Amino acid sequence: RALTIGLIPGDGIGKEVIPAGRRVLEALPASLGLKFDFVDLNAGWETFEKTGVALPEETVQTLQSCNGGLFGAVSSPTTAVKGYSSPIVALRKRLALYANVRPVKTVATAKKPIDMVIVRENTEDLYVKEEKTYDTPEGKVAEAIKRISEKASTNIAAMAGEIALRRQKIRASGAPSIHKGPLVTVTHKSNVLSQTDGLFRTASKAALADPKFSSVKVEEQIVDSMVYKLFRQPEAYDVIVAPNLYGDILSDGAAALVGSLGLVPSANVGKTFALGEPCHGSAPDIQGQGISNPIATIRSAALMLEFLDEEEAAAKIYAAVDANLEEGKYVSPDLGGTAKTEEVLQDILRRL
Amino acid sequence: RALTIGLIPGDGIGKEVIPAGRRVLEALPASLGLKFDFVDLNAGWETFEKTGVALPEETVQTLQSCNGGLFGAVSSPTTAVKGYSSPIVALRKRLALYANVRPVKTVATAKKPIDMVIVRENTEDLYVKEEKTYDTPEGKVAEAIKRISEKASTNIAAMAGEIALRRQKIRASGAPSIHKGPLVTVTHKSNVLSQTDGLFRTASKAALADPKFSSVKVEEQIVDSMVYKLFRQPEAYDVIVAPNLYGDILSDGAAALVGSLGLVPSANVGKTFALGEPCHGSAPDIQGQGISNPIATIRSAALMLEFLDEEEAAAKIYAAVDANLEEGKYVSPDLGGTAKTEEVLQDILRRL
Ligand SMILES: CC(C)[C@H](C(=O)O)[C@@H](O)C(=O)O
Ligand SMILES: CC(C)[C@H](C(=O)O)[C@@H](O)C(=O)O
Repeated sequence: RALTIGLIPGDGIGKEVIPAGRRVLEALPASLGLKFDFVDLNAGWETFEKTGVALPEETVQTLQSCNGGLFGAVSSPTTAVKGYSSPIVALRKRLALYANVRPVKTVATAKKPIDMVIVRENTEDLYVKEEKTYDTPEGKVAEAIKRISEKASTNIAAMAGEIALRRQKIRASGAPSIHKGPLVTVTHKSNVLSQTDGLFRTASKAALADPKFSSVKVEEQIVDSMVYKLFRQPEAYDVIVAPNLYGDILSDGAAALVGSLGLVPSANVGKTFALGEPCHGSAPDIQGQGISNPIATIRSAALMLEFLDEEEAAAKIYAAVDANLEEGKYVSPDLGGTAKTEEVLQDILRRL
Repeated sequence: RALTIGLIPGDGIGKEVIPAGRRVLEALPASLGLKFDFVDLNAGWETFEKTGVALPEETVQTLQSCNGGLFGAVSSPTTAVKGYSSPIVALRKRLALYANVRPVKTVATAKKPIDMVIVRENTEDLYVKEEKTYDTPEGKVAEAIKRISEKASTNIAAMAGEIALRRQKIRASGAPSIHKGPLVTVTHKSNVLSQTDGLFRTASKAALADPKFSSVKVEEQIVDSMVYKLFRQPEAYDVIVAPNLYGDILSDGAAALVGSLGLVPSANVGKTFALGEPCHGSAPDIQGQGISNPIATIRSAALMLEFLDEEEAAAKIYAAVDANLEEGKYVSPDLGGTAKTEEVLQDILRRL
């Protein structure tokens, strides 16, 4: 099978980790029968500075004809810059990548094993970015819309249910696990936002009440107490489904539990396309030193393959990464080691 | 000085911890010259079930003539119930309690000492609760307004600056501390919400640029990476200022770091009134067993006194609580002990 993969390194360490992801894909054993064509694409702050556009139309259109992609990271300004808008937020919307899937997992031999997936709605909530500012006698006032639809909530909850079932199947095949059965926890703040988060809650629960999810236990939790419990009892979570912003916050929180954002992958998933994206940002502070951890991107490449139905290839990559982590010999500085990006990559390549 | 204090136990364990807070205030040494008058007030889910109103007008009006108050917790339904609306959210607005101050602190002798204050804007953001729902051919859609004003952002940042200075003064007096100088970290997500969170950011920074805060270092951080860093490097924070919802989430996260929500107090602060409120909820699972931790409420009573300019009385209460925790003999179940609410309370009373 031939797969065309768009590569968008973006800014900062995105430029160091995306090539690592590519090399891992290229190194997959020929026996898998996969052939990759890579297309280099631009987006981000540097692109904006050069061309006045953060997400070139060409990038969007080329991706539309790709099977999948890998997105590094972009440096966004914290103040409004005329004409600039976060390319990853825009891409998620343009390509209808309705789910952001973020597995957070230690190796099975960890002292305190953690194994959860955060399934984040990826197109709406406050990320619709409909904002306005007006003047009042008491100064400026700004408003943003938080939009939640029954449709997107239903779709994301169904995705969470499917993932819970898939994880259960893998566990049933004898994989070591901290979980007893499939569980989806629905995140919301409907004690305050009874309509928006209330809709997310009821639509999610309705979707998960489908008979095909009859083996899936469904729980719910208010987002603030979820952040609390995430740190106190992370083993209580299997699959978490959340509106966009809570998912963003929860996944960074969960990443702290496994030791580094440099380990945590994500995939932006649409009906027929998946865009892998490490959860870390562009990290300008360590850029250019060759010390960024390539694992989040390598795992994101595997996650992308999973959603392109190449589970065997994905499993090979996960196993190679886990072997690297379990041995603990080539460890990047974010995890307390001294290995360079290239050394971690070489160690993983050799295990493929 | 005579202080009139409104007591609103609310639901669940609110009924167990508020009396403990009252008894601590009553037990303060006479030498402080404080005389308390207590007024019992209703609010919450039980009140709603009895009367059809969650926050009786009488409660609001009586509080308006009090100097301060203690609020326990209320059980809010997670689905919209006609006529029901969270009384604490309403109280914050009705009494113009513009700041929610949440100190999160271990005892100084802790192995990993933590000492931060989260200063949460308390009246706007998504908590304006302006929501609507409409039908579309693809199902229901709900929207909520996130509103950020220059005025509220300026006020809350100024409060954060004042608190940073006050903390620094206490440290300068020789109190043990993990901090070198006053620091305020401004929380936002202006890489996505350039207008609303952008306004919070610029207004906060402008307020903190006032010469009276010239000794205060000002940093900023995106909310998701803040949750990450909160867990990895909590000692990096002194005072955190945040819009309402992020403050809600961050304070639960921070509470996880000190071992239990049962330790974390808050005060809802207005120009001339302060309402102490433990950060834990109504905890129906442990209600009626007499095992709830009274410390969050006792510390909230002290925090209330601080904002009523009774710092000496507040310091006495803090010291008694710290002594209880340092000794570790009467420890409630949330912290791994077996002491009842009454035993923890007695131990603290005896140290006053
Ligand atoms: C960079 C930013 C727009 C993005 C987000 O908020 O989604 C990032 O935090 C993420 O989690 O992918
Ligand atoms: C009960 C709820 C409305 C409240 C809030 O969200 O503010 C609580 O979580 C808090 O932090 O005081």
